Amino acid sequence: MQKGKASLLFEHPAYITGMASVAGKKEGEGPLGKAIDVVEQDPMFGSDSWEQAESAMQKQAADLALEKGDIHRKDIRYLFAGDLLGQLIATSFGTVDLEIPLFGLYGACSTIGEALSLGAMCIDACHADKVMAMASSHYATAEKQFRFPLGYGNQRPQCTTWTVTGCGAFVLSSKGSEEQVQITGITTGRMVDLGAKDSMNMGAAMAPAAWDTIMQNFKDFGVDEGWYDKIITGDLGEVGKKILLDFMKNEGHDLSEKHTDCGLEIFDNKTQDTHSGGSGCGCAAVTLCAKILPEMLQGTWKRVLFVPTGALLSTVSYNEGLSIPGIAHGVILERIGGKKKK
Amino acid sequence: MQKGKASLLFEHPAYITGMASVAGKKEGEGPLGKAIDVVEQDPMFGSDSWEQAESAMQKQAADLALEKGDIHRKDIRYLFAGDLLGQLIATSFGTVDLEIPLFGLYGACSTIGEALSLGAMCIDACHADKVMAMASSHYATAEKQFRFPLGYGNQRPQCTTWTVTGCGAFVLSSKGSEEQVQITGITTGRMVDLGAKDSMNMGAAMAPAAWDTIMQNFKDFGVDEGWYDKIITGDLGEVGKKILLDFMKNEGHDLSEKHTDCGLEIFDNKTQDTHSGGSGCGCAAVTLCAKILPEMLQGTWKRVLFVPTGALLSTVSYNEGLSIPGIAHGVILERIGGKKKK
Repeated sequence: MQKGKASLLFEHPAYITGMASVAGKKEGEGPLGKAIDVVEQDPMFGSDSWEQAESAMQKQAADLALEKGDIHRKDIRYLFAGDLLGQLIATSFGTVDLEIPLFGLYGACSTIGEALSLGAMCIDACHADKVMAMASSHYATAEKQFRFPLGYGNQRPQCTTWTVTGCGAFVLSSKGSEEQVQITGITTGRMVDLGAKDSMNMGAAMAPAAWDTIMQNFKDFGVDEGWYDKIITGDLGEVGKKILLDFMKNEGHDLSEKHTDCGLEIFDNKTQDTHSGGSGCGCAAVTLCAKILPEMLQGTWKRVLFVPTGALLSTVSYNEGLSIPGIAHGVILERIGGKKKK
Repeated sequence: MQKGKASLLFEHPAYITGMASVAGKKEGEGPLGKAIDVVEQDPMFGSDSWEQAESAMQKQAADLALEKGDIHRKDIRYLFAGDLLGQLIATSFGTVDLEIPLFGLYGACSTIGEALSLGAMCIDACHADKVMAMASSHYATAEKQFRFPLGYGNQRPQCTTWTVTGCGAFVLSSKGSEEQVQITGITTGRMVDLGAKDSMNMGAAMAPAAWDTIMQNFKDFGVDEGWYDKIITGDLGEVGKKILLDFMKNEGHDLSEKHTDCGLEIFDNKTQDTHSGGSGCGCAAVTLCAKILPEMLQGTWKRVLFVPTGALLSTVSYNEGLSIPGIAHGVILERIGGKKKK
């Protein structure tokens, strides 16, 4: 079913029937620590390199999501997955053993939104009974890819975010119960480039994309912030959140009560030295698994607009003096059954 | 409609109603030169960097595919696109101006197969009336990303392939005529890693993935090579082709008459110093536009299994001593109307 320019409302919503989060020590010490399924103390995850560590984390999250959902690997028809690294090496190596037909995705830190969107489209179309959506990031692989060697001990300005070491894996199914959370619609983002050029301020690069996608969602469905119990962006952090709220206010929408950001949920910026907040594909994916879906299952929120955000940063384009375009993918999460807590 | 483990047969096949290819000087001098829509003599495409050149090429191909198909940009609901570069920078910057909701894809050189697959799934599901699938590569951006600075004048072993400077863009529509080529089914690849470690021999890394996907296609649909007029892989080159044919022969399938490879169609290895053949996302995408679809429209072939192949090479994983996994995405192209020439 089509509705609006960039949105779809599904006739057959996908049920989230399996989910797992795996994260690192620092994430385990944060506000969501107790809700993360596996907190691994070894940043190498028993591997020989940071990249292999991230692959191992993906494998662990995928296996655990299947186990928790009591689902056999062979019943997963497609895997939609990605990470931040060039040529998706965390995903390439992390998913070989799964032997599931793979659609490799790159949406920077918005990847879990892209994966859930395509997975839900696939379920809605009856192209599959079960698919998996997964995305990961690792602090050390991201720093190596995008910034400085860890040993260099680079100073970070206050507007930087801290890449989450974490992976979230989700099984989407055509069948489920009303007590489970469903993906009932999506709003797919486009590239938005307002000229942000500071690679140490990803929030500023992504906020315009989040604004564009949320406004498009409101327009396509003829709703506003009142329609949702919560609007949750991916990894804008404190700086990006402020920009988003300002942009939305200029359009006449006050999100101050309704909005939160996964980057502000996963770390305690005041005590964890994470400056503006958490970031990376793993930030939105782990927070979805450890905070958003549990709150929905407990009845705190019934309808959430989940908007993972991505900054298309590359050292190559950055060093050539180019700006950093952003993208944000909106996913509507709903729980039809159960009573709302408040 | 589902059929088989990794394949779909579409109830509503997507019609290819617009297509365009843009390529570089060397490609223009090759066997397909006259059939390529735009052969650009300036490898910089009027830009300041190789990466911006690749972005400009994407923009040009997208605009031309719309123009040739007499389709308005605003009627394209989704764009499925990717390239070889880390963080998809050719695509990020190349598609900003299009303002079309974007699913960024990474399947290495198989990306056009991934994009056509997801695009056709989207059309089959009635999620869109029109979508675009696009993929590009540029010799200079790829050499910079994966191998050596051009000025270094590195010697290349005979088993290497030559990255195509080119982009192919395709508009898929829910409506069309039987005279047009349709995507009637897909077989989605999975990661296949038989341990190839030579970054100068991509054919060897990808051939096992092509074999896996073709065998899966035969199994899922209960067919063999006799069902297709042609089976066309993406960029195996001479070395990879030999491996694929050997692997297939071991399974009792003789592809010697039915198989060709885009990497062997786009360059004349004997006169163009391209060693094993062409490669890169642009290789399969340009050959599809300049050779495969024209042959089908002329009636030479009625049913083609198009199998773009990708090697998940990364300098990071390669330098850490890891192997190079491969992936291949199968797309069934059919032309129902018209008479077969031979």
